[in-house]
Amino acid sequence: METCSIESIKIKKISAGIIRETEDELAIEEPLQIQLEYSTTAGMMRKNIAVTMRTPGYDQELAAGFLFTEGIINGKDQIDSIRQSHDSDNKITVVLKENVKPRLHHSYRNFYTTSSCGVCGKVSIDAISAVSLYKGVKDIINVPASLFHKLPSLLRKQQVVFESTGGLHASALFDLEGNFILLREDIGRHNALDKLIGAALMDDQLPLTNTILLLSGRASFELIQKAVMSGIKVVAAIGAPSSLAVDLARENNITLTGFLKNERFNIYSGDERVTM
Amino acid sequence: METCSIESIKIKKISAGIIRETEDELAIEEPLQIQLEYSTTAGMMRKNIAVTMRTPGYDQELAAGFLFTEGIINGKDQIDSIRQSHDSDNKITVVLKENVKPRLHHSYRNFYTTSSCGVCGKVSIDAISAVSLYKGVKDIINVPASLFHKLPSLLRKQQVVFESTGGLHASALFDLEGNFILLREDIGRHNALDKLIGAALMDDQLPLTNTILLLSGRASFELIQKAVMSGIKVVAAIGAPSSLAVDLARENNITLTGFLKNERFNIYSGDERVTM
Repeated sequence: METCSIESIKIKKISAGIIRETEDELAIEEPLQIQLEYSTTAGMMRKNIAVTMRTPGYDQELAAGFLFTEGIINGKDQIDSIRQSHDSDNKITVVLKENVKPRLHHSYRNFYTTSSCGVCGKVSIDAISAVSLYKGVKDIINVPASLFHKLPSLLRKQQVVFESTGGLHASALFDLEGNFILLREDIGRHNALDKLIGAALMDDQLPLTNTILLLSGRASFELIQKAVMSGIKVVAAIGAPSSLAVDLARENNITLTGFLKNERFNIYSGDERVTM
Repeated sequence: METCSIESIKIKKISAGIIRETEDELAIEEPLQIQLEYSTTAGMMRKNIAVTMRTPGYDQELAAGFLFTEGIINGKDQIDSIRQSHDSDNKITVVLKENVKPRLHHSYRNFYTTSSCGVCGKVSIDAISAVSLYKGVKDIINVPASLFHKLPSLLRKQQVVFESTGGLHASALFDLEGNFILLREDIGRHNALDKLIGAALMDDQLPLTNTILLLSGRASFELIQKAVMSGIKVVAAIGAPSSLAVDLARENNITLTGFLKNERFNIYSGDERVTM
């Protein structure tokens, strides 16, 4: 299901000292409430998991991807159905199969409250490792530097909505030869990636070990966390990574490159997969 | 208190087909746990409010700003002290004065769970209006278009850390003549703004009605929400606004401009304050 992700409004444009009224396109931002429904000994339980500000469209994939990358569910086969209510597009309920227990207390965010040493980068990294299904997966991936050079223009070719609004983040998947697989855009960069991973999850494509994840902007801890959770081994960011994103990539043997621009880029982690 | 917001690491740089090892500077990202301590009839209560991924530095201002823009506290005079634990830089506790009740159930995020119509943009906007202290404040602000043209270069002059890491968002305050007042940077754009508003709060500068808020990137709903909460009437973004950011700005009579670049910009809301 794809709904409208752009809204057209009247604005005033100032240019060269002249003001004129014109139409402009904005990326739509709306809250989405993600609910989980599962069976307990006391009957069916419904729980609000999160409210996220997202661009409408691919909401089922967003919800599935979010629950998976948070470590709350561990696969598509745990999902019975995903229900979007008719009276509001902004509520989505993921119904788990009978006898499937969501790992609500096992999720990495819960690590913060149970960790005896308080919150810190190290705890954040350990928490991801504790819930990741694909930590041990080995690979023999090689990606030529020339392919990294091509990624920004390959992304621009696919990223349609950004062109018109300038307001969306994108996550895109390419295979190891640079062939385009999938792209998702959203007002929130974490949502764009959850939609992408959710789509792969629902299409039985996990783990995404033999793919390259391209991020349209910066690489934060949260984005690398989602890459780890889905088995991705190569992440390329158009922008800068954060310190904790690099730490997490190094800890999980992920190749992380950044600042892709004009035949140049930086390798922050896992340079053994990059061939010249 | 200012702590280090940059980390230096060894990376590999690819340029013109040549790979070389070099030092690179990254923006630091670390979790911060924000706690609230307040008195109840049953004694002192301590509650975890949020964990946010932030760049260390100005943590007291971040915590105070966050609690204020969330509507949980309504002023500096409710704060008894702010405590950062010695054994971990990543936990901060805001202690309220005796008999001050935090508005935990009144905060706008709580609106989602209590609203009978479910979550939607309209509910989000109504929730902000319900908790904002400065909604009714009138102003007679005029800002010449020429001043908006100057803001990007004024920001670049102040934004030191971005230059070296490319990884930080900035929020900056200027007076109505374009004189620089204050800037805060952070890996999270909402944190940069909370640090800025927190600094103003602790310095008894609220409401910020006669200032211009400049955002280094895009303007999301959350950023306009924080502007509303602190009484800001003019917001200028270097990037694009979202649909809900524009709706919230219009509802609260905020002047919102975007895409500031090369003597051009767009006015999305409140054009009556912009003079040619």
